[in-house]
Amino acid sequence: MEIKIQLAEKDIPRKWYNLAADLPNPVQPPLGPDGKPISPDMLTAVFPMNLIEQEVSTKRWIDIPQEVLDILYRWRPSPLRRAVYLEKHLKTPAKIFYKDESLSPPGSHKPNTAVPQAWYNKQFGTTRLTTETGAGQWGSALAFACRLIGIECKVFMVRISFDQKPFRKIMMKTWGANCVASPSNETSSGRAILAKTPDTPGSLGIAISEAVEQAVTDPGGRTKYCLGSVLNHVLLHQSIIGLEAKKQLESVGIKNPDVVIGCAGGGSNFAGIAFPFTAEKIHGAKIDIIPVEPKACPSMTRGEFLYDHGDTAKMTPLMAMYTLGHAYVPAPIHAGGLRYHGMAPLVCQAIVEGLQKPLAIDQIECYEAAMTWAATEGFICAPETSHAIAAVIREAKKATEEGKEKNILFCYSGHGLMDMLGYDAYLEGKLERYEMPDEDIKRSLAELNGLPKPKAVKTGKW
Amino acid sequence: MEIKIQLAEKDIPRKWYNLAADLPNPVQPPLGPDGKPISPDMLTAVFPMNLIEQEVSTKRWIDIPQEVLDILYRWRPSPLRRAVYLEKHLKTPAKIFYKDESLSPPGSHKPNTAVPQAWYNKQFGTTRLTTETGAGQWGSALAFACRLIGIECKVFMVRISFDQKPFRKIMMKTWGANCVASPSNETSSGRAILAKTPDTPGSLGIAISEAVEQAVTDPGGRTKYCLGSVLNHVLLHQSIIGLEAKKQLESVGIKNPDVVIGCAGGGSNFAGIAFPFTAEKIHGAKIDIIPVEPKACPSMTRGEFLYDHGDTAKMTPLMAMYTLGHAYVPAPIHAGGLRYHGMAPLVCQAIVEGLQKPLAIDQIECYEAAMTWAATEGFICAPETSHAIAAVIREAKKATEEGKEKNILFCYSGHGLMDMLGYDAYLEGKLERYEMPDEDIKRSLAELNGLPKPKAVKTGKW
Repeated sequence: MEIKIQLAEKDIPRKWYNLAADLPNPVQPPLGPDGKPISPDMLTAVFPMNLIEQEVSTKRWIDIPQEVLDILYRWRPSPLRRAVYLEKHLKTPAKIFYKDESLSPPGSHKPNTAVPQAWYNKQFGTTRLTTETGAGQWGSALAFACRLIGIECKVFMVRISFDQKPFRKIMMKTWGANCVASPSNETSSGRAILAKTPDTPGSLGIAISEAVEQAVTDPGGRTKYCLGSVLNHVLLHQSIIGLEAKKQLESVGIKNPDVVIGCAGGGSNFAGIAFPFTAEKIHGAKIDIIPVEPKACPSMTRGEFLYDHGDTAKMTPLMAMYTLGHAYVPAPIHAGGLRYHGMAPLVCQAIVEGLQKPLAIDQIECYEAAMTWAATEGFICAPETSHAIAAVIREAKKATEEGKEKNILFCYSGHGLMDMLGYDAYLEGKLERYEMPDEDIKRSLAELNGLPKPKAVKTGKW
Repeated sequence: MEIKIQLAEKDIPRKWYNLAADLPNPVQPPLGPDGKPISPDMLTAVFPMNLIEQEVSTKRWIDIPQEVLDILYRWRPSPLRRAVYLEKHLKTPAKIFYKDESLSPPGSHKPNTAVPQAWYNKQFGTTRLTTETGAGQWGSALAFACRLIGIECKVFMVRISFDQKPFRKIMMKTWGANCVASPSNETSSGRAILAKTPDTPGSLGIAISEAVEQAVTDPGGRTKYCLGSVLNHVLLHQSIIGLEAKKQLESVGIKNPDVVIGCAGGGSNFAGIAFPFTAEKIHGAKIDIIPVEPKACPSMTRGEFLYDHGDTAKMTPLMAMYTLGHAYVPAPIHAGGLRYHGMAPLVCQAIVEGLQKPLAIDQIECYEAAMTWAATEGFICAPETSHAIAAVIREAKKATEEGKEKNILFCYSGHGLMDMLGYDAYLEGKLERYEMPDEDIKRSLAELNGLPKPKAVKTGKW
């Protein structure tokens, strides 16, 4: 078996996969301020109608436009690789496969959705996109997509990442975007937060509020907002990861892996690798599917399945999801892309249904895993991706103990070349271990008391 | 035709190609302090004998050890890509192919030689390698190779790059290397230069002196020195680039390209892509072969073909090469890897023979080319690589004017994700145009007056 399992360009998937079509129970609808399900046209101030249609669609397969594919070909299909050097180091009988999403121009999986989002917006007549970014992976991906497609791009970058990752800003500028630290003075929600807490490290929730505000307050309506994760249509676009991986595994005789792993902040790279296999699980395959989150921001493992806002300023509809509460500001871990209080509703629904089983790992174990990765596979991974690798190492060790020749698949969501400061902190012994006290979670969830509750779901046996 | 032309792992070249076997006139020998050709054993204080044998070899093909291939498989064979988006943008009839060497863990072509150098040293009993680095690409490549092979690594990094590229230092640390700014206080040559010019930006020549000094002064003889370019065995290891590209072009029906381009600082990535095609040219093929250098450091286009030292402190043997003089400290352009006063003797010999025709381009045109690249192909290239791209754009425009469907091949030697400060300077309009005054070149070449001169070479017609 070759270490790199390639897929020819002509074999690239031509349709995205939508898990909403296969979930045993329907996803609970987003709710408006009145507690009633929102209708698609209530989202038009923020998103173009063609993407709203994808957001609410329950069609199983949705065509990928040829012009989108023409852009994705710059780095797709991405290779599926065998981590043979890590396997040897761990002396595991498991085979470890990773889908390498680090090869895109911005270095992560994010352009898989940035490109179609920019393209559908352009089709719709949008001339300017606003967005938030954590580690800068999403912001640079959208800057990249907007540059190639030809629309303006404005990025609100969480302040701690803005300060820790200076090169990301220049990258966005190189692709022509305008990037500012969030909270900023450019929006009323930003100004309000700065007035109360001028030293805040910021959060994805705050940055979302700022970006949404700029879209909804544009009198011409030609500014729209773009989200890098969480929403159904974003997860839809990422399904290309798992669909390609499935074809690649099949090409070496593996129908389904035994374990599928991805790190999860908003849930999009995880959903991308996991949903096509979640469908297999629904239809009878035996697969352990594991989203991995940081202990500093444990929405899936210590949060509750509730209706909550996607952002801090409560501008978004209520979504049924595992959440720590929209007011929660996570500790400043280096994996900025995993600092989000909630989780994609589709991922949460799959967890509620018992199809996926989340895991939380602290950043020190993750950096240890990243160092092992660099010393064996040779590559330097993103701090977010290190969470997936830490879980893979746990699973590979379990396979050794059990003496089982498992096939483990994970999403290598991005490289860490723009995120070297976390490695420096680790090497200098300055990395902090963050664990959120129970009282903090209780306090932040208490703010959701008056909100509607999701309906109970009868879970299946998988 | 697919945009990415893959080569299967089983088809990786198993032998390196040595141009010395095919050059019409033999390369002129390196000379010792007495002006006489040095013998291989005079190099043993610096290099292990197995690499010295490669350095002086005139065998055409040299086996690549299986254990070296086992490491290279992490990213090799590298894809050959078609730059279809740049072609469209330029409206050129030319087909532009690039060999993507940016996919290695450190992000450049440098590990192609770092891995075999570390491996041969380990075989020989070396326990510690010292080296110099400009932009940090070579230093991080050697750190990477030493980490995987299991020997110590010490890197002297040119001060201006040390300051401009902080992430490279952390990268080297992540792979376990010890990296210091050069000139440093750790060597007598470094201390001497700091005493005279405490504010020097440093240069590759100075850093080489420091690294060589640490090898020759190790009383145990277990510390050896490693060079990232210039020497014959380094160019030999890089031939895998051109050999793979040749197979890939043949797989789409192209026997030889019409133009081959690479940027050249010490000459190794250029030689890697160019030498297998230089052999074709010697045997009758019509190919334009173009090494591209910065106008700020124009060794091939404005220097002279003379015997000169490879380093500032005159510790290395004399080599017959195009040089600006070993005392020359190039302007602080962002392409740190191209700031070298000389050029690989094998490349220079091919130029003297009329087989290759150098070109100098200033850094502003290069950054413009890099911006065009980012806006079309989508990737952010290294400042060194931008020199090749600028030359490719010139050649593609020439093809348009001539109405010729040329095939242009170039080496995409590395990505620029660790070198964003140059892009920032360009975008802020702060990039300087450097051109070296004639008097400066004359003054620095005057220091070579007492040295032996290379023999005259009868050049062929190609």
